[in-house]
Amino acid sequence: MMIIMKGGCSDAEVEAVIDKLHGIGAEAHLSRGEFKTIIGAIGDRELIVQIPWAALPGVEGVIPVMKPYKLVSREFHPEGTVVEVGDARIGGEAFTVIAGPCAVETEQQLLESAVAAKEAGATLLRGGAFKPRTSPYSFQGLGEEGLKLLVRARETTGLPVVTEVVDVRHVLLVSRYADVLQIGARNMQNFLLLSEVGMQQKPVMLKRGLSSTIEEMLMAAEYIVRGGNSNVILCERGIRTFETATRNTLDLSAVPLVKELSHLPIIVDPSHATGKREIIPALCKGALAVGADGVMIEIHPDPGAALCDGPQSLELDEFAGLMKEMKRVAPTLGRSL
Amino acid sequence: MMIIMKGGCSDAEVEAVIDKLHGIGAEAHLSRGEFKTIIGAIGDRELIVQIPWAALPGVEGVIPVMKPYKLVSREFHPEGTVVEVGDARIGGEAFTVIAGPCAVETEQQLLESAVAAKEAGATLLRGGAFKPRTSPYSFQGLGEEGLKLLVRARETTGLPVVTEVVDVRHVLLVSRYADVLQIGARNMQNFLLLSEVGMQQKPVMLKRGLSSTIEEMLMAAEYIVRGGNSNVILCERGIRTFETATRNTLDLSAVPLVKELSHLPIIVDPSHATGKREIIPALCKGALAVGADGVMIEIHPDPGAALCDGPQSLELDEFAGLMKEMKRVAPTLGRSL
Amino acid sequence: MMIIMKGGCSDAEVEAVIDKLHGIGAEAHLSRGEFKTIIGAIGDRELIVQIPWAALPGVEGVIPVMKPYKLVSREFHPEGTVVEVGDARIGGEAFTVIAGPCAVETEQQLLESAVAAKEAGATLLRGGAFKPRTSPYSFQGLGEEGLKLLVRARETTGLPVVTEVVDVRHVLLVSRYADVLQIGARNMQNFLLLSEVGMQQKPVMLKRGLSSTIEEMLMAAEYIVRGGNSNVILCERGIRTFETATRNTLDLSAVPLVKELSHLPIIVDPSHATGKREIIPALCKGALAVGADGVMIEIHPDPGAALCDGPQSLELDEFAGLMKEMKRVAPTLGRSL
Amino acid sequence: MMIIMKGGCSDAEVEAVIDKLHGIGAEAHLSRGEFKTIIGAIGDRELIVQIPWAALPGVEGVIPVMKPYKLVSREFHPEGTVVEVGDARIGGEAFTVIAGPCAVETEQQLLESAVAAKEAGATLLRGGAFKPRTSPYSFQGLGEEGLKLLVRARETTGLPVVTEVVDVRHVLLVSRYADVLQIGARNMQNFLLLSEVGMQQKPVMLKRGLSSTIEEMLMAAEYIVRGGNSNVILCERGIRTFETATRNTLDLSAVPLVKELSHLPIIVDPSHATGKREIIPALCKGALAVGADGVMIEIHPDPGAALCDGPQSLELDEFAGLMKEMKRVAPTLGRSL
Repeated sequence: MMIIMKGGCSDAEVEAVIDKLHGIGAEAHLSRGEFKTIIGAIGDRELIVQIPWAALPGVEGVIPVMKPYKLVSREFHPEGTVVEVGDARIGGEAFTVIAGPCAVETEQQLLESAVAAKEAGATLLRGGAFKPRTSPYSFQGLGEEGLKLLVRARETTGLPVVTEVVDVRHVLLVSRYADVLQIGARNMQNFLLLSEVGMQQKPVMLKRGLSSTIEEMLMAAEYIVRGGNSNVILCERGIRTFETATRNTLDLSAVPLVKELSHLPIIVDPSHATGKREIIPALCKGALAVGADGVMIEIHPDPGAALCDGPQSLELDEFAGLMKEMKRVAPTLGRSL
Repeated sequence: MMIIMKGGCSDAEVEAVIDKLHGIGAEAHLSRGEFKTIIGAIGDRELIVQIPWAALPGVEGVIPVMKPYKLVSREFHPEGTVVEVGDARIGGEAFTVIAGPCAVETEQQLLESAVAAKEAGATLLRGGAFKPRTSPYSFQGLGEEGLKLLVRARETTGLPVVTEVVDVRHVLLVSRYADVLQIGARNMQNFLLLSEVGMQQKPVMLKRGLSSTIEEMLMAAEYIVRGGNSNVILCERGIRTFETATRNTLDLSAVPLVKELSHLPIIVDPSHATGKREIIPALCKGALAVGADGVMIEIHPDPGAALCDGPQSLELDEFAGLMKEMKRVAPTLGRSL
Repeated sequence: MMIIMKGGCSDAEVEAVIDKLHGIGAEAHLSRGEFKTIIGAIGDRELIVQIPWAALPGVEGVIPVMKPYKLVSREFHPEGTVVEVGDARIGGEAFTVIAGPCAVETEQQLLESAVAAKEAGATLLRGGAFKPRTSPYSFQGLGEEGLKLLVRARETTGLPVVTEVVDVRHVLLVSRYADVLQIGARNMQNFLLLSEVGMQQKPVMLKRGLSSTIEEMLMAAEYIVRGGNSNVILCERGIRTFETATRNTLDLSAVPLVKELSHLPIIVDPSHATGKREIIPALCKGALAVGADGVMIEIHPDPGAALCDGPQSLELDEFAGLMKEMKRVAPTLGRSL
Repeated sequence: MMIIMKGGCSDAEVEAVIDKLHGIGAEAHLSRGEFKTIIGAIGDRELIVQIPWAALPGVEGVIPVMKPYKLVSREFHPEGTVVEVGDARIGGEAFTVIAGPCAVETEQQLLESAVAAKEAGATLLRGGAFKPRTSPYSFQGLGEEGLKLLVRARETTGLPVVTEVVDVRHVLLVSRYADVLQIGARNMQNFLLLSEVGMQQKPVMLKRGLSSTIEEMLMAAEYIVRGGNSNVILCERGIRTFETATRNTLDLSAVPLVKELSHLPIIVDPSHATGKREIIPALCKGALAVGADGVMIEIHPDPGAALCDGPQSLELDEFAGLMKEMKRVAPTLGRSL
């Protein structure tokens, strides 16, 4: 950490900072330039960051140099993590497609979607049983009944199931039914929920918060891994910007960047990112090309009757067409699908 | 709601939309322009918004016309709400100052802050016992022990206590100690927590999410009021933008806008919005001048030793000086302090 | 255009709006709901938008329904435009690679880059002679001398030249040397410059402004096409968001969206969008996969000695390797490279 | 400047950086931590920043420590600048009100506005003669005819005139008529225009670009001051964010921050920032309270007939009422109005 002193700081102020560093067993490297004095703090990072340096007299600001996460960093763990879910593998050479409806609505709707997903080549099934909704007047999901339908769809198709857990009190309940626990974008910094799923054995899919930086997403993953669960799959799903032509702005740059910074696999959800069915196939291919480990796609047998996110759901045959295209492209990018 | 049809839509597609509207008992007003066909939907809003119109063939998009909230809207309840907490009133002519440390650290730190807050003229005490932190390695608060210290500070000073509840499982616990339940920015769309505090009697302070629109904040308040608790105080605390000179960008325009749209009181938290002690006094006066019902300010007897947010905490005498200034300005703006 | 009236608007206020519409020869379609009254305005769009409806008594707001651009819209001109520059074609099946240094620095630096670009399969050469720089103390480009070096590089390699024009007074000068006139991101809404290049014969590459919406980019293109020059190539180059891990956030969703909205070709510039050499190859492949008509890539024989944007420049052999990869992928996406 | 080396960098890579620093006469201060090596560069800032350090092998990144501007910084010039325009003073104790229509439309519209501005206590008149408009189909201003009308309004009222210059070719023309040259938000980084007005004697009002940081605004001012013109007035006018309830998000925190960083006066334009007449009076008082040196307000005798920005223009009597309020508040904040 670099501590930048104010222009006219006194020697006593510089000394006070250095003394405080020595007091916690850290070294201080002093650089005095013509205009600026900088003190490099070298020692135990956890101790150093606890002190509010910027609140000390004469200090202008503080510049962190080390990354604030460890367990999820590639420096710490150079080899890429592969998360196994049933027969599916997320990470490595595999390009994994997770498909299914936004919300579980009825047995027929779910089964039809699941069978179509399986036939087209998806390897996991998605479907929401508990739905966090911006409006208290919108459909909130079927709850445990939805989880049971997901299990039935798994029995029919063999596809492992990804579903969201929104309530700390439901972590065990959802774990009994689901194969992957999804943490939604709005809960990416719900640290209690992160800690709870960190204590489970089930793999976790962590969606990026819509105003979260890549660094914050990695720190949220750190909460989970630190709890003991290292099977974390990251998911880029768009960030909030001034552009209103799409619901959010899909940040595909995050994919190669995360690959540099972390060993965790990362997939892309273009359905929630854009909210626009027409451009989802293009973005799925984009995700494949930038090096994502998979995509999560919303599909629905009848988007015009969906209780949730109809306008962004692919019809089942559109999805099958897209899978064919991706299968043609994947090998030229060194991925198997 | 206006349903905009695509350029070359067919008559059958237009008919299908109209039939669907009639099917839910709504009227359809058709406007055919040279280039665009628009169908106005008139009827029960709750039924109309359930249908994913944009997923129907021939539909280009949908434009909502009605506000998506009701109970918190000024149209529904023209008179401004005044929330009473002990002797303090939030709303009306009062300009309420809430002060205290970011986190409760020790009995002495808290009591010193509380006494200083009281002497300078604050009418509520803030202090965090449960701290949601971006890093799993940061101080997470004293928990219930912190709540007990807050009660001791209330007994000493008579100031009612505002403190954050972060966990749905702690709502009853925190309610036993606190006078106002704070919902933090990261939990603004934690709908379970909103529903829980909506079932309490205690007033709720709802902080705007850092990437939430004003409309979303009002919808979050709607969740609480709909649960039966109409004592909601909104809090503007900055939104995330590209500007990095301040931690967030304080959106003071939100204050007069919320006053137009809603009957709920709204206060401003410049400490978290900016993270910069030097500019907090100016922004407190700004909050007063734009018509806020109060401010929430972080103070600390020794910011350089704070375990949380030291750089944005005012020293106790700085705070006293600011209070004097605000008392001089308030009457010329029609506010009592 | 839909004119939304306020909740308690009077009949006289509604009448006044309708009269004003009739006064300009437009029709008014009135929809009265239980809570809202809406007036659809149908007639000459150019006349209708001139009136500040939202400033009239009783009007709550105005919702445009028609797109604000015409000449560049796909509705107006369904077939995709292909811009020809020498032997290169931008649009259609071609995937065009434009490569070269950020700034022209020396004859050797430019020629080495141009020869490497040509050998690897690029079809246009980029290079800045006039550089708009955030700091007045940074290198500002070689000016006309740089243009002359670009011509020399074209003579050597046969590659047509793309270079930026920043000054309305230089449009003719730059046109004498360049094959494509580039309008930089900071000038996307420099309407004078847009009008000037609209009166030239030379193709124009219009870069998206870093805080411009897709709609504003299309309106900027409309300025050029309206001047008589329909050879416009759009360029997505990242928008400014809260994320600081990359210089800007590359908005690859813009590519398929623009393809829906407009007939103009669109390319992607991942070098300026991200500022990070390591992730540029991944994003070039992403651009290809989402359907862009090409990419513009910064290359440099010695990035560590570059006078401008060294950290985002690919080395010449990195670039050659990337070209090989893209050539392998392109046919599976139906593109020729 | 601090140069951060990558985790596993070699000694040779560290040496290469140090040699390069020595080569330009700078000192290198080396700090080796357990995980990170940092090299502090001390010497001539202008020389140091020319080298693309981040493109050198083994370098992870570069952290600037010095501010990138000088002439406009308060460190360089501690006393606040007061810009004099006729009898008006911008800066110091004065709180300056600039009022007038968005665009000059007719002699009567302008004179009526100017007389009302003068009577209510404004000390400068604004009015646009050249209007940069997002759409090529919108009213573009009266041009030189508008400038002549502004002069007539000055002759009638004695109010000095602020008007925008958009074209480098018009700087001399506009200077002949105007008292203050305004650089609009879209031109804040039009460096040619900044250089041109830097060579004039007339004071310049520089509006913040809608996606510009405070630092970039100060660097744009540096361009002007470096040209020889130190009479620069900054203007905060809102930045582009995800919030759509207001046209832009007014960043009032920028005011006290700029006061810390720079000696230049800064005013606030709530009309363009918000686009909403109803909340402009509140924000004018907010600007006064946070310490701005003035406000610029759009007024119009008949907003419903305005050719430009009607919905954000105050009616003349609303403006007079606001002036009375501000006069009552100003003295309690130590400002004269």
